[in-house]
Amino acid sequence: MLLRAGIVGFRGYGGAELVALLHKHPHAEPVLMEHREETEHAPKLRKPSLTPRIRCTADAVREAKLDVVFLATPPEASLDLTPGLLDAGAKVIDLSGAFRLRTPERYKAWYKAEHTQPALLAEAVYGLPEFYRERVKTARLISNPGCYPTAANLAIRPLMDAHVIDRTAGIVCDAKSGTSGAGRKASLSNSFCEVDENFSAYSVLNHRHVPEVLLTSGLLEAEFSFTAQLLPLDRGILETIYFRAPGITSAASLLKVYEDRYADEPFIRLYELGNVPDLRAVQRTNFCDIGVKFDPATGRAVVVSAIDNLVKGAAGQAIQNMNLAFGLKETEGLL
Amino acid sequence: MLLRAGIVGFRGYGGAELVALLHKHPHAEPVLMEHREETEHAPKLRKPSLTPRIRCTADAVREAKLDVVFLATPPEASLDLTPGLLDAGAKVIDLSGAFRLRTPERYKAWYKAEHTQPALLAEAVYGLPEFYRERVKTARLISNPGCYPTAANLAIRPLMDAHVIDRTAGIVCDAKSGTSGAGRKASLSNSFCEVDENFSAYSVLNHRHVPEVLLTSGLLEAEFSFTAQLLPLDRGILETIYFRAPGITSAASLLKVYEDRYADEPFIRLYELGNVPDLRAVQRTNFCDIGVKFDPATGRAVVVSAIDNLVKGAAGQAIQNMNLAFGLKETEGLL
Amino acid sequence: MLLRAGIVGFRGYGGAELVALLHKHPHAEPVLMEHREETEHAPKLRKPSLTPRIRCTADAVREAKLDVVFLATPPEASLDLTPGLLDAGAKVIDLSGAFRLRTPERYKAWYKAEHTQPALLAEAVYGLPEFYRERVKTARLISNPGCYPTAANLAIRPLMDAHVIDRTAGIVCDAKSGTSGAGRKASLSNSFCEVDENFSAYSVLNHRHVPEVLLTSGLLEAEFSFTAQLLPLDRGILETIYFRAPGITSAASLLKVYEDRYADEPFIRLYELGNVPDLRAVQRTNFCDIGVKFDPATGRAVVVSAIDNLVKGAAGQAIQNMNLAFGLKETEGLL
Amino acid sequence: MLLRAGIVGFRGYGGAELVALLHKHPHAEPVLMEHREETEHAPKLRKPSLTPRIRCTADAVREAKLDVVFLATPPEASLDLTPGLLDAGAKVIDLSGAFRLRTPERYKAWYKAEHTQPALLAEAVYGLPEFYRERVKTARLISNPGCYPTAANLAIRPLMDAHVIDRTAGIVCDAKSGTSGAGRKASLSNSFCEVDENFSAYSVLNHRHVPEVLLTSGLLEAEFSFTAQLLPLDRGILETIYFRAPGITSAASLLKVYEDRYADEPFIRLYELGNVPDLRAVQRTNFCDIGVKFDPATGRAVVVSAIDNLVKGAAGQAIQNMNLAFGLKETEGLL
Repeated sequence: MLLRAGIVGFRGYGGAELVALLHKHPHAEPVLMEHREETEHAPKLRKPSLTPRIRCTADAVREAKLDVVFLATPPEASLDLTPGLLDAGAKVIDLSGAFRLRTPERYKAWYKAEHTQPALLAEAVYGLPEFYRERVKTARLISNPGCYPTAANLAIRPLMDAHVIDRTAGIVCDAKSGTSGAGRKASLSNSFCEVDENFSAYSVLNHRHVPEVLLTSGLLEAEFSFTAQLLPLDRGILETIYFRAPGITSAASLLKVYEDRYADEPFIRLYELGNVPDLRAVQRTNFCDIGVKFDPATGRAVVVSAIDNLVKGAAGQAIQNMNLAFGLKETEGLL
Repeated sequence: MLLRAGIVGFRGYGGAELVALLHKHPHAEPVLMEHREETEHAPKLRKPSLTPRIRCTADAVREAKLDVVFLATPPEASLDLTPGLLDAGAKVIDLSGAFRLRTPERYKAWYKAEHTQPALLAEAVYGLPEFYRERVKTARLISNPGCYPTAANLAIRPLMDAHVIDRTAGIVCDAKSGTSGAGRKASLSNSFCEVDENFSAYSVLNHRHVPEVLLTSGLLEAEFSFTAQLLPLDRGILETIYFRAPGITSAASLLKVYEDRYADEPFIRLYELGNVPDLRAVQRTNFCDIGVKFDPATGRAVVVSAIDNLVKGAAGQAIQNMNLAFGLKETEGLL
Repeated sequence: MLLRAGIVGFRGYGGAELVALLHKHPHAEPVLMEHREETEHAPKLRKPSLTPRIRCTADAVREAKLDVVFLATPPEASLDLTPGLLDAGAKVIDLSGAFRLRTPERYKAWYKAEHTQPALLAEAVYGLPEFYRERVKTARLISNPGCYPTAANLAIRPLMDAHVIDRTAGIVCDAKSGTSGAGRKASLSNSFCEVDENFSAYSVLNHRHVPEVLLTSGLLEAEFSFTAQLLPLDRGILETIYFRAPGITSAASLLKVYEDRYADEPFIRLYELGNVPDLRAVQRTNFCDIGVKFDPATGRAVVVSAIDNLVKGAAGQAIQNMNLAFGLKETEGLL
Repeated sequence: MLLRAGIVGFRGYGGAELVALLHKHPHAEPVLMEHREETEHAPKLRKPSLTPRIRCTADAVREAKLDVVFLATPPEASLDLTPGLLDAGAKVIDLSGAFRLRTPERYKAWYKAEHTQPALLAEAVYGLPEFYRERVKTARLISNPGCYPTAANLAIRPLMDAHVIDRTAGIVCDAKSGTSGAGRKASLSNSFCEVDENFSAYSVLNHRHVPEVLLTSGLLEAEFSFTAQLLPLDRGILETIYFRAPGITSAASLLKVYEDRYADEPFIRLYELGNVPDLRAVQRTNFCDIGVKFDPATGRAVVVSAIDNLVKGAAGQAIQNMNLAFGLKETEGLL
């Protein structure tokens, strides 16, 4: 099988990662889709890459016989493009926030805009394979999770399922992301001299990705404190998660919660007791690495969760979802 | 008045910062003190700096008529050197952890070594001027606070004094530091290619600086979760502090706790509601910048505290202490 | 004396450096001048800096009794603003390229625009104090040199005066600059993820700063190969300069050319034989550091010249010029 | 075919890159060889990688049936290990400088040590496939080129063969390398805070890699000025090469020299007129990218050559050589 996979938004960092990963995928070939006029920004090679380009229209999708289209676009563009692409017979894997929050009300509250496709919102499957694998397999429209929620939910959901968190004391998720998470665009706040040698918090307590964590983990907003912070580096997310685990008696038993839940997961890696991941460990991989620390005397627990925001947090997870949705081996092209 | 100020450990990052700040100080002149043989590591200028150099002995201190000696040395060296320097008539401002923890038992528990100067430990004054100003003024031996505890205590202590923290839910301090905080030495873990594009946690829950926060803030260890993390940048510490404040009704009233406490403090800067500091704001300054976020619906609070680890977290605060101890204007040489 | 010094373009990196340096200057006070509407980009402090602000008009300049105005603006804005500021009685120190190239023809050839103030162009004095000190002292309009030409001319001009360069073989100047040299603006090419971990050449052989080097050094364009390159760091310029010196017999005699010429210069620092400067040595200083390497067997010579592009390459040199133009000590506020 | 490929020095940056590339190679499997005791430096995964490990002895090589051994070791270790490995029947691809300089005299002059294996030195083939492909195919001992010489020779040798360089005026190669080029070791000069925000020249005019360029290009030492410089980034080399080309009439005809020479080369990429490569273009690839600039009015030429120092400059080129030496497709595992 050779899937024909369109990419809208291929000039962005997530889109470019999709193109690169699909080029290496044994059962897929990338097709670049021109969404709107944009100027290139790179020195010109004498022999440019041969990835074909088509217009981003339903007719073009049919003519090009695309099996799947990845939308690496802002939510508004995803809302506009999705119906036509589905009508043209392609599955859609949307990397924006357009279809993540389940109800139009929630979308409006966090994205400050009306949701124009409520029926598709109801239909969309949240593409976190470790928890929604079966539904992804048959989905027509897959909503790829946000980068921060991927790292957070993979760390928190097993703890919630195992009821180890003292929810009255709450849970803190202090998240740090490389600057590619802010997208590829001209902006003063992301210019080199503003980010270099700097570190800054943004969207403290009210980041758009918060409701994704609540929906998947089952936490209430009052129980979950989240801060997003910008690292002076290109790629990677590391989240330091704090909570109290009164029923846990040792670091080993805390780690065992993850071992039990993730024994068969190909993209979750756990660390030996006393070790936690750093960003290097996950950069340019589709892994989510998790390590734990625990103080039995006081019940204080810390979990560190790390991913590459452009891979497991975007393009890699999107391909993992594509693999599932087309009956391929889940790890194909990703190891 | 012109204070003659010796610096032991002037080749380290904190020591070099001391030399630079003292060169600009209108009432002090730096004297470099050779502690042991070390090779220089810098291209050689044709006309080197004229800062004088003496041996680090009591006789040399007397002969050079030093008023004060700054120890930018490991704790063991500080323990060895301090008695002789005091005997020679100099005040000592120690930047190591040797005299910070008040009792030999606590020192042994956290520094894994016997404290050899218990009498001096009892005498030493903890040099956080915002809380111990009067005692610093008359001290002979000043223990300069650690970098992490400086940022933490300046943010937490006013909240403790105002009883706004829900201590049963605990307080989380997620701290990030530039790599200069690890000192100037050859080590694989601090080599460029290991730190660049990386971010990593270390000493999760059991960092040596924890007891300093407990001693100054009054928190119990069970109430305080602290993680130190390494940023791929040179200098600066930013701490993101999470807690519940059930009695607080608005961000403004949380900010007011700091406004009331710090109205007359020259080195504390507060931020307008909705704003928190980034590292840039404090680099190469002696300021501690503080901003708050608060969600009245749920009582969740976040405070961001930022300093330069080499200035307010080390050399600048040491000079602030020197100014106090010699009756100079507290801000002299630091604005 | 307290000079009242206006700054137009204070939000840019060069302008902000001017404000910071003038705040520390014992005989000047900065006045921020609003040139056009711009949004701020920084978290808001509770007590903002007290630097006054005025409109950028001739009337406002008279009313505010400004002695000097620094233009940290694009060349077109400098051309527009300069006549009115001079009429209002202020000296003008222009940091743009508007008045550097001596003739309207040369300006048009390199800046691709008509020069609208040819009389002022003829009047302007090129503010490289090490070579034009006397003329700067009496100038009404000072054209502050470009950053690359400052490092290049300070290294090359003494060699030209001493006739040591084999001009038929030519001279190569391979220049590297921190990203602040590109200015403070939103642009994709200067965004963090494009610059981080990257290094790139631009304006190879045809950079706008080339004619400034030719005019000051006396080299012909055919003799001078120059490449500008972008470093993934904030500030500093390092230029590696290659030539043949057939009449030179040793590194010491090459270094002596500089020692003779720069014996009394406060801002030129020379290096011991076998040593060349790195960027760290000059960052946040007004120094130009120079070191030489020479192979007597073949006559090949390499000179390394380093400055801080925002200080000796912009704001610091502008203040050095201000000091000269108002009869202050040349180093005032700069050491 | 499945080649069993040993790697000595797998903990270094070049060695680790070899392991990673061999893991992806369809016809090779890596075998880690323990050379001496070293401590690991990475958080521990629960399920570590399954790459097998053997001792670095001739017996172990025979028992493990290794086809080839890569030596990512210092030259002295390569000299010690090579004879035994060859005796054990493995081909050896040495990434050190031990076998690059053809004669013991030259080795002694540049490496300041006696060459202990002159017969093997005479036998070794210099593994720059673009110029020595046929000899590599039958070699038993391949000397993998240095990183700087790879980028330099691929840019310079075609110009020499086409006689376009004015050798009397000489050629300048201003080289910049990421810090991984300095190897993975604890050293103050490579520590994060010394390299970050810095840029420095080292080994000006007398770098050990110079004779490799002379031997391959045919230039004389008097004609070639080379400076190595350290970039504050992880990986990549960019060389800016300056010369005069009196017989060349246009940039197109200069570019044509490369087009003619490299028409069939899989790992050389040329750039459209007016474009030169940046580091990003080649990082994590085995490509050497080349672009040209030329001023017909004066004959001045600039060529920019870029590689990844760990791939085409080390591990990738080593695998390219392995592919050739074992009759595999030259690009196998490298695209």
